[in-house]
Amino acid sequence: MLLSRLELEEIVRRALREDIGTGDVTTLTTVSPKTQAQGRIVVKSAGVVAGLPVAEEVFRQVSPAVRMTSQLQDGDAATPGAIAALLQGPAQAILTGERVALNFLQRLSGIATLTARFVALTAGTGVRIADTRKTTPGLRMLEKYAVRMGGGHNHRFGLYDAVMIKDNHIVAAGGITAAVQRARAAIPHTMTITVECESLQQALEALEAGADTLLLDNMDHETRREAARLAKGRALTEASGGINEETAAQIARSGVDILSIGALTHSAPALDISLDFVARSEEP
Amino acid sequence: MLLSRLELEEIVRRALREDIGTGDVTTLTTVSPKTQAQGRIVVKSAGVVAGLPVAEEVFRQVSPAVRMTSQLQDGDAATPGAIAALLQGPAQAILTGERVALNFLQRLSGIATLTARFVALTAGTGVRIADTRKTTPGLRMLEKYAVRMGGGHNHRFGLYDAVMIKDNHIVAAGGITAAVQRARAAIPHTMTITVECESLQQALEALEAGADTLLLDNMDHETRREAARLAKGRALTEASGGINEETAAQIARSGVDILSIGALTHSAPALDISLDFVARSEEP
Amino acid sequence: MLLSRLELEEIVRRALREDIGTGDVTTLTTVSPKTQAQGRIVVKSAGVVAGLPVAEEVFRQVSPAVRMTSQLQDGDAATPGAIAALLQGPAQAILTGERVALNFLQRLSGIATLTARFVALTAGTGVRIADTRKTTPGLRMLEKYAVRMGGGHNHRFGLYDAVMIKDNHIVAAGGITAAVQRARAAIPHTMTITVECESLQQALEALEAGADTLLLDNMDHETRREAARLAKGRALTEASGGINEETAAQIARSGVDILSIGALTHSAPALDISLDFVARSEEP
Amino acid sequence: MLLSRLELEEIVRRALREDIGTGDVTTLTTVSPKTQAQGRIVVKSAGVVAGLPVAEEVFRQVSPAVRMTSQLQDGDAATPGAIAALLQGPAQAILTGERVALNFLQRLSGIATLTARFVALTAGTGVRIADTRKTTPGLRMLEKYAVRMGGGHNHRFGLYDAVMIKDNHIVAAGGITAAVQRARAAIPHTMTITVECESLQQALEALEAGADTLLLDNMDHETRREAARLAKGRALTEASGGINEETAAQIARSGVDILSIGALTHSAPALDISLDFVARSEEP
Amino acid sequence: MLLSRLELEEIVRRALREDIGTGDVTTLTTVSPKTQAQGRIVVKSAGVVAGLPVAEEVFRQVSPAVRMTSQLQDGDAATPGAIAALLQGPAQAILTGERVALNFLQRLSGIATLTARFVALTAGTGVRIADTRKTTPGLRMLEKYAVRMGGGHNHRFGLYDAVMIKDNHIVAAGGITAAVQRARAAIPHTMTITVECESLQQALEALEAGADTLLLDNMDHETRREAARLAKGRALTEASGGINEETAAQIARSGVDILSIGALTHSAPALDISLDFVARSEEP
Amino acid sequence: MLLSRLELEEIVRRALREDIGTGDVTTLTTVSPKTQAQGRIVVKSAGVVAGLPVAEEVFRQVSPAVRMTSQLQDGDAATPGAIAALLQGPAQAILTGERVALNFLQRLSGIATLTARFVALTAGTGVRIADTRKTTPGLRMLEKYAVRMGGGHNHRFGLYDAVMIKDNHIVAAGGITAAVQRARAAIPHTMTITVECESLQQALEALEAGADTLLLDNMDHETRREAARLAKGRALTEASGGINEETAAQIARSGVDILSIGALTHSAPALDISLDFVARSEEP
Repeated sequence: MLLSRLELEEIVRRALREDIGTGDVTTLTTVSPKTQAQGRIVVKSAGVVAGLPVAEEVFRQVSPAVRMTSQLQDGDAATPGAIAALLQGPAQAILTGERVALNFLQRLSGIATLTARFVALTAGTGVRIADTRKTTPGLRMLEKYAVRMGGGHNHRFGLYDAVMIKDNHIVAAGGITAAVQRARAAIPHTMTITVECESLQQALEALEAGADTLLLDNMDHETRREAARLAKGRALTEASGGINEETAAQIARSGVDILSIGALTHSAPALDISLDFVARSEEP
Repeated sequence: MLLSRLELEEIVRRALREDIGTGDVTTLTTVSPKTQAQGRIVVKSAGVVAGLPVAEEVFRQVSPAVRMTSQLQDGDAATPGAIAALLQGPAQAILTGERVALNFLQRLSGIATLTARFVALTAGTGVRIADTRKTTPGLRMLEKYAVRMGGGHNHRFGLYDAVMIKDNHIVAAGGITAAVQRARAAIPHTMTITVECESLQQALEALEAGADTLLLDNMDHETRREAARLAKGRALTEASGGINEETAAQIARSGVDILSIGALTHSAPALDISLDFVARSEEP
Repeated sequence: MLLSRLELEEIVRRALREDIGTGDVTTLTTVSPKTQAQGRIVVKSAGVVAGLPVAEEVFRQVSPAVRMTSQLQDGDAATPGAIAALLQGPAQAILTGERVALNFLQRLSGIATLTARFVALTAGTGVRIADTRKTTPGLRMLEKYAVRMGGGHNHRFGLYDAVMIKDNHIVAAGGITAAVQRARAAIPHTMTITVECESLQQALEALEAGADTLLLDNMDHETRREAARLAKGRALTEASGGINEETAAQIARSGVDILSIGALTHSAPALDISLDFVARSEEP
Repeated sequence: MLLSRLELEEIVRRALREDIGTGDVTTLTTVSPKTQAQGRIVVKSAGVVAGLPVAEEVFRQVSPAVRMTSQLQDGDAATPGAIAALLQGPAQAILTGERVALNFLQRLSGIATLTARFVALTAGTGVRIADTRKTTPGLRMLEKYAVRMGGGHNHRFGLYDAVMIKDNHIVAAGGITAAVQRARAAIPHTMTITVECESLQQALEALEAGADTLLLDNMDHETRREAARLAKGRALTEASGGINEETAAQIARSGVDILSIGALTHSAPALDISLDFVARSEEP
Repeated sequence: MLLSRLELEEIVRRALREDIGTGDVTTLTTVSPKTQAQGRIVVKSAGVVAGLPVAEEVFRQVSPAVRMTSQLQDGDAATPGAIAALLQGPAQAILTGERVALNFLQRLSGIATLTARFVALTAGTGVRIADTRKTTPGLRMLEKYAVRMGGGHNHRFGLYDAVMIKDNHIVAAGGITAAVQRARAAIPHTMTITVECESLQQALEALEAGADTLLLDNMDHETRREAARLAKGRALTEASGGINEETAAQIARSGVDILSIGALTHSAPALDISLDFVARSEEP
Repeated sequence: MLLSRLELEEIVRRALREDIGTGDVTTLTTVSPKTQAQGRIVVKSAGVVAGLPVAEEVFRQVSPAVRMTSQLQDGDAATPGAIAALLQGPAQAILTGERVALNFLQRLSGIATLTARFVALTAGTGVRIADTRKTTPGLRMLEKYAVRMGGGHNHRFGLYDAVMIKDNHIVAAGGITAAVQRARAAIPHTMTITVECESLQQALEALEAGADTLLLDNMDHETRREAARLAKGRALTEASGGINEETAAQIARSGVDILSIGALTHSAPALDISLDFVARSEEP
């Protein structure tokens, strides 16, 4: 699994404690601890599944006695009715973990599904569909994983792992050249610098200053195309702003290398996924 | 502020550590610690604002030297271009906190805005628009707060503060009556019991058993109306399932007391909000 | 077990780190890691046992090689000399975990025992013996569990899961009616409202305002009886204040539904429980 | 204050999060955030006060706007009706923090009061009244502080800061001499060794082996007196087991240096302390 | 300060809790809380100072009443006897915080001093002296900061922010080209790839595959020089292995861009720094 | 293992999260999760090994599928080339855990090695080589364990478990006698008191006051010898200051009981230890 296990454990534990609190009063008072159950995680609408290992960790933490067997893999496209996983174990544990597992699965699959749509819309252009830092506080690692499962790529993970010089940094530093130089002198040689450009002139200055990537923000189509042409072979170009399902294909054909889209993580609707109980028995 | 301050501090701290990690390399290398700045938090699309105290806590944790003055209050309807808050303080701190503050504001305002839309659609019917447990793992307290800011109401906060007997609990307990009795005998007298009903017969049994609320799940319109009529004066009725902007008004007029809608929290698109820098000076 | 496993793990881990710190210097320097031992947890005075699963978690965290087999169940009445559980495993682990395990067991069994005494004193009256929020900071979940094991019932778990309007809230809100209305309009429909009443007049106002429970605080016997009579069928009644082993039975016969008693958790003496080593061998 | 501030902050934060959870629904819905209040912490029964700095930290964390002014100091003997502290600040904050502050104060004052009683019973004998490790899990630092405030002394804080060789360690090590030697060779030279002795012969062996303290456990009066005489000038002697308000004075006169009493922390009833609101105003 | 404040707070809090535990028994029992003191942090041997803001945070957490005024700045070269900072405040707080503050200062200054020595030895060659991941567990952020204060540069911060393909990754992936391609396809476009090369042939393959940096590990001087020549303008070159104060200058003149040296953080001796009390008064 | 398992788990978890962050991008993108590997932990220079159980915990946390078999034990002297442990398991897990495991092993073995050198230099004199509180923040428990593995002894663990009266405490308390008396009256009877003495006169006063240990700080040889002679049989004597490999033997022969040496933990160079992969296979 392309995830840090230690971080995953933390995130899941926090989610379970938030939901369970001092105890699941309904399940504890109505269901015998001896009752066994089987369940199926079912995808109700078409979409790309993401988060199955997260759901598995949810049930593992609720009770080691639950066994979850995935029928799909993260990144698989599911048709309505597809069974993503089977569950077997104590009915109490399955009922108590159900909502948290689904909350993760629905959100992450929603992100993977929206990402896959943009990937499909720009197929053949060679551009990368990338995410942004517009993620849900506390879930960035998982949401960026979901973007990858949808066929997209990740942008930087935070303020700490790459330089992104925006208009306010440029003004504060006294110009693009000064900003790039100051950053380059101070950062690890393993780190890259992106400069946000709003005009061809800024793009040219950033290229001269040695930027690794030009972020072409909210440029009109002609300017963007010209900036991409100028940068070719010298720096990567990334388009952002105003990218939606209507405009993505055209922007992708402008010659830029990357489309970065905040909506992938901040506005993806949840994918409809549910958990069906299929059998119960008193025998452990 | 209708929030637990200690929980809020934890959530914000986690979000900042996720984004800042070992340090904001861009800001630290391009902006002088002495540079002061002013900023404006601007709502770009029409919507209901929620999360201003959260943003304030974000900037407070990044640097106590930042002063944020809200111009709007959570729950206010904003028109495009409305200034939600003014910021003043070290440019470094404002730039470092910007994204996390906006991530909270955009998500919470998105939820408040969607909630307000359902409240408006059902105005005059007397029903409550309520949320569910389909919230983002780790952010439930804030998302439920946003629902209230949009004019909605909260359902239970977790598995621990109210009983909700669903089909699987009913089967496990050997029927609605048994389930309600077992729960009632064990739970605090301050806690209530909701029973999920899929038929009139179940609704009747739940009423007889003394349920406080009937959750009428995915019932057709006629059955729902009849169930609401039967329950009137004996228990609250809550409709769920298949409630969207097209159906909400009609369902609200069926006589139920509450519409609970998962989409409020799992599928609300972010509200477009940004931070504009308006002035800078070297003087502290 | 009627406990949240994740919370239990946290509480036990905290207790062990408090006691063990950088290491059990006595055991580590005088006992070989290869020595195996058997032990018995013995109840020395008559009482109701509570906390065996907590003790089990203590030993599990100290070493997975310890096996604890309960001979009694939480809630069982034990006579002096009763063996509550058997232990087998590395002598080091049993010695290191002993005190923390007993500290939990003695306190929780003390609470269960005191609760059972009040339950017995009020047997046949139909009242519930309930706890309060006067619990040990950090152990509320466990102490409320112990009350249940003693045959008692829980009151609300904290400030977050039920409304309890006391005299100061009434003054601040401008009266009982205003306070109940403001709370009812804002809280989840799954939550209930208790109003503390010091007179019949207040009880009547609270009933009119729709309170779910009347907390009859420190009322004289006649007033309490009359208040209980008035409320019958309209709201639950809870007596508190001045309830001790002398007064409990009489108050229970006044017609109220619940006696809530802070002493159950704030002043229960520990039950005398010890751990005896019964055999040792060098073989693992 | 004789406490580690960092640990205190942690303990108080945990207690507040346990009680407040997602928010104090009663106070938030019935009391205006603008209402100011004054309060008095009143001791209702005679006893020794302990925990005022803990209560102060509670209110500080709930809101920095609350000002608490202690009228008594920890360790002071209070008569019924004595005012321990005055409070001033937002009514919401005082109401929300009240119960947690009192829970700490009542428990710690209960411990200080019981300790002071044993100190008084043994006055003039020169013995120290000492606590044990039979403390409430998670609150050991505070409870041992309360013992000091009652005029008692602390025993070791945990398994990590002193050696205490009990019968099972003796058997495992192959005798008292071997156990003391193995421990002495391995522990820091700043650490001391106590040996639990059940007979004069064991006491003699422990003295020969160089024990720093003899723990005379459940000895009859004659043996205890003789053991104390033998040890005088060579090691400290500590009596434990069967010490209660009837026996303490006699045991103290047996010549031992220390009486260690588990009941100080595991069975002290709470001292009755309450918070009275004395005035309210809308002006901040 | 070029540090994440939130991380710094965590690290300092952990260090203080480790040292103070349940309380500084010496200071609390021998020094009055009212005694005020002044102190001087003095550098006893020549070296580069680093960690003053860390020391400041230590004293701030012990008591907000301590005021620390730095006389030197991190990165300054100090001669023996130089006063790095002045302290004023409660004697208790200064004594309790002293050791932890010095432990940070001595270690970080030791690292900065060793780094500065390598920087001086390679002055004029244009190479960067860089650290590695061979840092003290838990202190990486601070130790890498100290390297910067000594005039050095940072390498990647962890396994998460840059790709470093070593021999085992190469074998596992089936060759350098395959490894670089697989990584490039999967990582964010903002991230770079370093390939560890042990021969000219590997260096050539890595260049062809598009590596951003060649890590020339333990190469003989001739091969290293040739590899650096080949890479010039196509990739950065980094030498590692066998770099010490004797060899650094020669290796630096081989044409590589970076020397990475594990010893900077894993074997730097502490710089001798102490805290002198210079005056005391009873007045607060 | 002479370590607290719960603390060890915390320290290792923190170290792994620091290094792995959101994921090991190199290993995850170049190595198949199915590839199995074998490795050897090899000691490259002569020294004393310490930290093998820590390395084992590192790999256990990265993946339970890794099996580590120690060939040496902590405390063993290793010759260059000695194999300390064998590893078997998923190649991904071994590569991801490698650096953190080695960082612990190298540092702890460096400390054990330096300690062993001082132990050898003072062999036959009967003195203890002891550590100080000059440890790495956050790693004290492990570093003090490493000192023991090198044949040394521990001094107090922190400010909380023994009294150490230094010059500033003496001044603040108004003299050695007053300081010792105030401390003795307040501390547990299980705790000891060390007094730092800079002259014979101070040593005499400390002896009279009943100090358990005299810390002879930076005394000249004659004075130290005389102080040791005076204290013999009345208190332990500990020399500190100016102890290095040249002076240790002579100081050890001065009659003192303990040499305490800060350099053991603050300036021990890392021992050279590496991890070699010896075989790989695709079969799990």
